[in-house]
Amino acid sequence: MPTLALSPAWQALKAHRLAMAGADMVKMFAADPQRFENFSLRHDCMLLDYSKNLVDAETMRLLMALARERGVGNEMQRLFRGDKVNASENRPALHTALRDDRPLLVDGVDILPQVEATLARMRAFTDGVRAGAITGSGGKKIADVIHIGIGGSHLGPALVTRALAPYSTGGPRVHYISNVDAAAAYTVLAGLDPAATLVIVASKTFTTIETLTNARLVRDWLGSAAEGALVAVTANTRLAAEFGNAEERIFPFWDWVGGRYSLWSAVGLPVALGVGMDNFDKLLQGAHDMDAHFRDAPFEHSMPVVLALLGIWYNNFFGAASYAVLPYDESLALLPAFLQQLDMESSGKRVTRDGEPVDYDTGAIVWGAPGTDAQHSFFQLLHQGTRLVPADFIAACEPHHAAHAQHAILLANYFAQTAALMNGAPQDGFPGNRPSNSILVEKLTPRTLGLLLALYEHKVFVQNTIWGTNAFDQPGVELGKRLAARMLPELENGDPVAAYDASTNGLINFYKAHRDSGN
Amino acid sequence: MPTLALSPAWQALKAHRLAMAGADMVKMFAADPQRFENFSLRHDCMLLDYSKNLVDAETMRLLMALARERGVGNEMQRLFRGDKVNASENRPALHTALRDDRPLLVDGVDILPQVEATLARMRAFTDGVRAGAITGSGGKKIADVIHIGIGGSHLGPALVTRALAPYSTGGPRVHYISNVDAAAAYTVLAGLDPAATLVIVASKTFTTIETLTNARLVRDWLGSAAEGALVAVTANTRLAAEFGNAEERIFPFWDWVGGRYSLWSAVGLPVALGVGMDNFDKLLQGAHDMDAHFRDAPFEHSMPVVLALLGIWYNNFFGAASYAVLPYDESLALLPAFLQQLDMESSGKRVTRDGEPVDYDTGAIVWGAPGTDAQHSFFQLLHQGTRLVPADFIAACEPHHAAHAQHAILLANYFAQTAALMNGAPQDGFPGNRPSNSILVEKLTPRTLGLLLALYEHKVFVQNTIWGTNAFDQPGVELGKRLAARMLPELENGDPVAAYDASTNGLINFYKAHRDSGN
Repeated sequence: MPTLALSPAWQALKAHRLAMAGADMVKMFAADPQRFENFSLRHDCMLLDYSKNLVDAETMRLLMALARERGVGNEMQRLFRGDKVNASENRPALHTALRDDRPLLVDGVDILPQVEATLARMRAFTDGVRAGAITGSGGKKIADVIHIGIGGSHLGPALVTRALAPYSTGGPRVHYISNVDAAAAYTVLAGLDPAATLVIVASKTFTTIETLTNARLVRDWLGSAAEGALVAVTANTRLAAEFGNAEERIFPFWDWVGGRYSLWSAVGLPVALGVGMDNFDKLLQGAHDMDAHFRDAPFEHSMPVVLALLGIWYNNFFGAASYAVLPYDESLALLPAFLQQLDMESSGKRVTRDGEPVDYDTGAIVWGAPGTDAQHSFFQLLHQGTRLVPADFIAACEPHHAAHAQHAILLANYFAQTAALMNGAPQDGFPGNRPSNSILVEKLTPRTLGLLLALYEHKVFVQNTIWGTNAFDQPGVELGKRLAARMLPELENGDPVAAYDASTNGLINFYKAHRDSGN
Repeated sequence: MPTLALSPAWQALKAHRLAMAGADMVKMFAADPQRFENFSLRHDCMLLDYSKNLVDAETMRLLMALARERGVGNEMQRLFRGDKVNASENRPALHTALRDDRPLLVDGVDILPQVEATLARMRAFTDGVRAGAITGSGGKKIADVIHIGIGGSHLGPALVTRALAPYSTGGPRVHYISNVDAAAAYTVLAGLDPAATLVIVASKTFTTIETLTNARLVRDWLGSAAEGALVAVTANTRLAAEFGNAEERIFPFWDWVGGRYSLWSAVGLPVALGVGMDNFDKLLQGAHDMDAHFRDAPFEHSMPVVLALLGIWYNNFFGAASYAVLPYDESLALLPAFLQQLDMESSGKRVTRDGEPVDYDTGAIVWGAPGTDAQHSFFQLLHQGTRLVPADFIAACEPHHAAHAQHAILLANYFAQTAALMNGAPQDGFPGNRPSNSILVEKLTPRTLGLLLALYEHKVFVQNTIWGTNAFDQPGVELGKRLAARMLPELENGDPVAAYDASTNGLINFYKAHRDSGN
């Protein structure tokens, strides 16, 4: 049996939760004029206000004690120094090393030179493409980049490309193909010129079926232009070369970087091509700055630790099954999807690192959408539904455009919603007392985006440490993958299938009967 | 006190839930060779397989009894015949009338002529634009349509425009602006020609701040081309005319159509412009066909009733706080967002139609993403997390493209995942026994899309009927809106704000200090 639920800190939190049953945020603000100061953190140009939560000083003290009791400090040190924190796969998880400039030994080898050499190669390549020195077929300047990857090789770069669009002047357009649904690839290819298109294929193993299937489709589309157009990001140099990649066009994807933490590696190449290597460097610096904050700040002042503990508080002591991510920023439209992967793939675990089934909840459902759109969609439930949904509200003070009055409307809504969720209006059917975090950055720059993404990476790590689970593996994706591979040949012929349960047989046979409708 | 939780059918379900504690789907399939036939429904070219659920014949019998006890049949009749089912707003909810060809009296007036006249106007306008007879400024053919709306005036048309992209040949490109974040508008406008662009502003009241703010931004961009470019969909003809719309360019938005059910009205104009009015008619016909199925089929054979009851089963008897929508179809990428609004805004309620606080859960969190992408993201949690997440898997047998072998890969994954969720592999850490519905259509056509969307509309209606809640109002959006309007003028000056709680003051003042960073 895992020890967590029996631990003194956990038991103390359970008792404290009962004592907090009638906690009323409005009253807590009235009782403590310093509540905002006491329950908010600033780091650099970022503000994390967590005062609109169902917590008091005692809650935070007990949560901090839990973090200490569960060895968060020690596990963090193991993470940073390259210990094999991904025990099930016997690997370290060194995304932090990708944004550091200090030597680090992995199995006796300093990885810093590899990291720096790869960044240098990325810079040379990126500069060459953007300046027109590296061209497409027939000497055409590269106008478009297609990045083919899925999951961890897709969501990070896609998010950042969109978020940093204001920095993309002068660079090629960057497109993403991830879904094996060929409609995705055809939509991207429509209107592009093979002679002016660069194609990046990102897959650690270079065997991911979705990525390779799409890569073949796009290679066919490239035709004779393929030779100069292909780039790979992979750990499998041999397969990438066989696919048609020149050696100097193969960028490394190291074993010690997990897919969903790989944005900071050469997987970020499409980002660098779109916004330039200087901006990619600033993204790394922002993330590194959050690493340093996480490593050095006392738990009480650590943004990742505080965010993680609040998550544990609602997840495990209030039964909140989900939390919402609400960027008031159209450029962060993909943040909920990115955090879905980061958090749910890391934390959707039912056994501890020792293989023992947990007797408490682990990862929650992450979901969300940009405000103000979301206000006209699901906010009804946030305000008046029966479910407790803690929410992270994220915004930037300063826009990239000149319509400052319109930005003020966006921000007025941002401020109003967390106030409305907390204060409510009981006479009008709004119970209030609904919790939220507010994260404000000065401006959404490469640097602050790096801060923000690393903040969530470390939040997820702290939560897994507390649960005793491994934040860096994903064994749950294997079963379906194996089964799909087994089914695929059986879909090709017209014979009815009877090898599976009656439901699966029935579905497959319906497909076989209807896939050539002629409509 | 609401009567639901004390009703005989509810109590019987509670007892039955205990009896089902050890229910094992794999064993139930083994025990009943007809389980697939018994627990699946076909309608037209659509299959709903619900056999992979934690239900047996007794479960379904008790759930059907609940639907009957709660008067679902009667409430459905009230819906279709135009009774004021939206009691809090004293209005009927007549989205079904928008796709019907039979007379219907509302307050003594037959609405069919209005509906038909509007469809005829939409056809004339759409045909004119697509043929080049209705042009932009200086006689230019319309190349682009911008639709400005938010929430109900946005998500439906945006979903359908994307889903029916294979039918858009020959039509103008259609773009959407919803978020008040001006970055959204600027992104759409980049590269468009005011003289070849039509701009639709959709707002029932023509006062929605996001929509009107964006409309003004776009009108400024249009400059002298605005006169011929503006179109409105609204119930407020006066304000639309004052904004600059010619009378014949104002399409009606009736009081008896709720925003999130308005796709089928003139709010669908951008869809019709993109894919042609014949295809929009087929969309309506598909939805009407689902209406007829819902109205006429016995509950046991009714897809909306079955889907709704399964939702109630997990929501109220298993404590499932969310369900996932997983389209294995890139063109349905916006379906989770559309259903978030449809379901959560309808069902996120804490009082019954009589104003009594509920003592049971109502609406669940709706979330999801297209497969196979989602497999490489959050499926880890679906397979091995600690939470029960019922899921709807949606796919089409036949693709619109010729890459049939690649479509088979997509479908192999579709079949494999529900099988893996159910069967599991306990020796490998997959507990299995995780429920799902599979919805398969022959092909994603305008008609089958209409079937699918109306299926969920009626599902949501049935669930609200059982909970005794109003599926057609959204009072929870008002408080934040009022507060934002009050705050807005206070954001304009540089003075510190002290009028709110300390958190809200602190956030606003951080914004004021950082909004002109100069970075």
